[in-house]
Amino acid sequence: MKTWMLAACMAATCLASGHAAAQFKDADDAVEYRQGALHVLGNHFGRINAMVFGKVPFDAHAVQVNADIVAVMIKLPWAAFIDGSGKGETDARPEIWAQPDKFKAAALKAEENADKLAAAAKTGNLEQIKAAFGATGQSCKACHDDFRKKH
Amino acid sequence: MKTWMLAACMAATCLASGHAAAQFKDADDAVEYRQGALHVLGNHFGRINAMVFGKVPFDAHAVQVNADIVAVMIKLPWAAFIDGSGKGETDARPEIWAQPDKFKAAALKAEENADKLAAAAKTGNLEQIKAAFGATGQSCKACHDDFRKKH
Repeated sequence: MKTWMLAACMAATCLASGHAAAQFKDADDAVEYRQGALHVLGNHFGRINAMVFGKVPFDAHAVQVNADIVAVMIKLPWAAFIDGSGKGETDARPEIWAQPDKFKAAALKAEENADKLAAAAKTGNLEQIKAAFGATGQSCKACHDDFRKKH
Repeated sequence: MKTWMLAACMAATCLASGHAAAQFKDADDAVEYRQGALHVLGNHFGRINAMVFGKVPFDAHAVQVNADIVAVMIKLPWAAFIDGSGKGETDARPEIWAQPDKFKAAALKAEENADKLAAAAKTGNLEQIKAAFGATGQSCKACHDDFRKKH
């Protein structure tokens, strides 16, 4: 089974079982974990962005490497939005806990699009990569619009 | 090609090419990236630790999921130890930049042991997992002893 599938299974298990809290020492640890995962995710998504928009030369192998990392990373943060972790140094909005089904659906959509991006990356075709990258970026934005604090 | 192989190739490319800095906005971004990656890594390594030491029930599937994540995550931080990122809010010791070959060798050793842990996890055999987990933990400790500040 591929890593991303395993990660997806784990995330799904954590969300479904309600035992996610046991995977973190406390709320602060969960916040640090998800912020770390999202930072790493953003970095590798940004590297693809730079190639998609021609800021750096297109490198099919580099896109594939980064898309695979994105597909792993994007499955990690969601289980860390445990109860009580919406306070303090976090941009998480209360809607995450008030609308859990909507939040999970948004996260799942992003995961699915990232998997499609990783698949597109394997073709090495820039147009396919651009389309899949755009869809993934839209998923990120949609989730941020609804569930992340504005600054 | 498996995700961990791709990640390994990327890390190796970054380290070899010296263009790692271009992957980060600045030193602070690199520090945040590597601390995030290491936090996520530590979390998933800790979940295996808990099962290896019987603090939570052994779950072969959970070990496999976490070991796969560990094998991906452990390849990410090293490229982020860019020049100039040894100051400020970091536990990185100057030896990382003073002894780059030793640092790279220590990182590679940890990566290799994590790959072996992921392979052991796929067997579902607790004794094999324990042995591979111990070796990986030793790699982490050895690198921390030499290259991380003591508190």
